[in-house]
Amino acid sequence: MSPSSSVPEDPSVAHVEASDTPSLGSLGEFGLIERVTRDRPAGAATLLGPGDDAAVLAQPDGRVVACVDVLVEGVHFRLDWSRPQDVGRKAVAANLADVAAMGAAPTGLLCGLAAPADTPVEVLTGIADGMWAEAGVVDVGLVGGDVASGPALMISVTALGSLEGRAPVLRSGARQGDRVAVCGRLGWAAAGLAVLTRGFRSPGAVVGAHRSPEPPYAAGPAAALAGATAMIDVSDGLLADLAHVARASDVGISLSRKAFAVPDRLVEVGSALGVDPLEWILTGGEDHALAATFPADATLPEGFVEIGVVAEGADVLVDGEPYAGPTGWDHFTSG
Amino acid sequence: MSPSSSVPEDPSVAHVEASDTPSLGSLGEFGLIERVTRDRPAGAATLLGPGDDAAVLAQPDGRVVACVDVLVEGVHFRLDWSRPQDVGRKAVAANLADVAAMGAAPTGLLCGLAAPADTPVEVLTGIADGMWAEAGVVDVGLVGGDVASGPALMISVTALGSLEGRAPVLRSGARQGDRVAVCGRLGWAAAGLAVLTRGFRSPGAVVGAHRSPEPPYAAGPAAALAGATAMIDVSDGLLADLAHVARASDVGISLSRKAFAVPDRLVEVGSALGVDPLEWILTGGEDHALAATFPADATLPEGFVEIGVVAEGADVLVDGEPYAGPTGWDHFTSG
Repeated sequence: MSPSSSVPEDPSVAHVEASDTPSLGSLGEFGLIERVTRDRPAGAATLLGPGDDAAVLAQPDGRVVACVDVLVEGVHFRLDWSRPQDVGRKAVAANLADVAAMGAAPTGLLCGLAAPADTPVEVLTGIADGMWAEAGVVDVGLVGGDVASGPALMISVTALGSLEGRAPVLRSGARQGDRVAVCGRLGWAAAGLAVLTRGFRSPGAVVGAHRSPEPPYAAGPAAALAGATAMIDVSDGLLADLAHVARASDVGISLSRKAFAVPDRLVEVGSALGVDPLEWILTGGEDHALAATFPADATLPEGFVEIGVVAEGADVLVDGEPYAGPTGWDHFTSG
Repeated sequence: MSPSSSVPEDPSVAHVEASDTPSLGSLGEFGLIERVTRDRPAGAATLLGPGDDAAVLAQPDGRVVACVDVLVEGVHFRLDWSRPQDVGRKAVAANLADVAAMGAAPTGLLCGLAAPADTPVEVLTGIADGMWAEAGVVDVGLVGGDVASGPALMISVTALGSLEGRAPVLRSGARQGDRVAVCGRLGWAAAGLAVLTRGFRSPGAVVGAHRSPEPPYAAGPAAALAGATAMIDVSDGLLADLAHVARASDVGISLSRKAFAVPDRLVEVGSALGVDPLEWILTGGEDHALAATFPADATLPEGFVEIGVVAEGADVLVDGEPYAGPTGWDHFTSG
C-alpha cells in the first residue's frame, strides 16, 4: 500500500493525461486502491483487509504457504485477446493452483501492479474485478496491493494458503510403483491459444480456457488427504512439469497415450488446425490441472484420472519412449 | 516459481541475445532461479524454501502479516544512480518496514520480477544479492519468486511477518492526548535524491540513504510492546503519512518544528543546495522511519523521539498551522 517513490518520473514513461476518459494518472494511486477495494467481501481468513501498512490473515495451524506469479502484457496476455476481467482471473488462478498443488487451501491474495499512467481506469478496475471474482471462488480476499507507474502492464500476484494441519505435498515424494494421475483440463488453453494465434475467436470453449483457466482447487487438499506422495500444478506443460517431479523425486515417470481421453472439442479444433490434440494435452501449459502421484493402493480422489506409473530411471516417457518435440515452456530460452 | 506463459513473445519486447555477456535470455528462468537461491541461509521461519510450487513458513501465533511493494526502473530507481545490490536492498527494506509498522517481525519474502531478456545476469544476481543481504538483517529467507520477460525492470516484493501473539498496531488507533514519536532517519533519502538530481554523487551519507534505507525494524515490535496506539511506515513523507494516521483515527496531529534535531549533515547539504533541510524531514519519503502514537503515560522505546501530540481536528499541523507546500507523494497525481 505504501508507494516507495522518489526518482522524478521520466515523462516518456509515466505522465498524467488530461482526458475525458479517467486514467490511472488522473485518478491517482490512492483513488484506484479505494475504488478496487470498496465493498468487497472480506474472505474467510481475513482478519485485517487492505488499507493499513499490511494485512493480517488467519493461519490456524501455525504455518503459511506462499507463492508468487508474474504476468506481463504482451507476454502472458494481450488485451485484444482477453478482457481485463479474464486477465485478473488468470493471474489469480495461476497462483491459487500453486497453493492447491501443495495440498493447501488458499487464505488470501496480494497484488503488485505496474501500469502506464494513461491506462484507462476501467482496464484496471476490470482486472481487479476478475481478481476478486476468482478469489471469491475459494472465499479469499485481495488483502494487499501496490500500484506503480511503469512502461507496461505488469501484474505480480502473491497467494497465501493453509495446510490445515497436513504435511505439504512436495514435488520430491514420488516413489517407484506410485500411480500418476491428473485432475482438471489439459490442452484446452493451448488449443485456445492456437486458435487465437491463427486469428480466430472460436470455438469459445477453448478460447475461454486460454483466457481464464478453471483449476480444480479443491482437488489439491483432496489429493493430500488421499495420501498423494508428490504433486505439481501443470503450468508449463504436463511433460515439462512431470519432469520437475521426476527430477526432484529421482525417479522416472512412464505415461500411456491411451490413458488420455481426448475430448471431442479438442479433436475438432486439432482437425481444423492440423494439430494432433494429444500434443496440446502433453505439452500445453496454463490449464493449471494438478498432476499427482499416489501409492499403488490409494483410492484416487474424485476427478483424478490415472495416466501412468512412477518407474525407474530419470525421464518422463510416453509409451516407453522420450517425447519427440518440445515438452513445455522455459520462459526465456524458448522465446 | 511456475511461469504462466503462453502468448508468443513479441520480439520487440523480449528476445534472446547471442552475446558473450550472459543475459537473462541466455541463462533462462530456471537457470537464474537456481543461481540466486543456491547456498543461501534459509531464514529462521522457513519450513520449506524455494523450489516447489510454493514455500511454507512458520507462523507460530496462527496469523500472518502480509504486504507488497512495487519498484520500477526509471521511476523508483535508476541503475546509473544505484548499484543492483542497492536496488535489491531497497525493495526489501520498503516491505520489511511495512511489516514492522504493524508491530510484527518478518518471517519471509517473495519476489515477482519482470526484466528484458537482454538484462545482464549480473544485474539480476546483484539485485538478488541485495535482497538476501537485507533479508539477512532480520534473519528471513527469500522463499519464493517468479521471473518473466518484460519491457522494463519491475520488482514486486511481498513480505510476510509474525505478530508474535500481539494485536496488530493499526493506523486507526491514535487517541487525543497521545504523544507522537518517530524512530529512524527522516529526510536523508530526500536529501540524497536532491543531490543526485543535481548531478552530484556526494556526500555519500545522504546518497547512500537514498540508495538503500536502513529502517529501524526492531522498533516496530518494541513500539507494540510499549503500547503504541497507532503506527505507520514513513514511505511517502512524514506529513503525508501522519495524515493517513489522522484520517484513519479521526483525530488531528500537532507537530512542533523545534522537536526535530536537524542533523549537521542535512544542514550542510541543505545549505549547499539552498533548501531548508526541515522540508526534507517533514516531506521526504523513503527513509522508512516508523511514526507511532503512544499513550501519554507510556515510556517511549529506545530510539523514539517525541515530535508532537494527537489533538482535536482532522489535520496535521506544524507549529499550529497547515504546512505550506506539498506534504508527500501520490504516485500518479504528483507525477
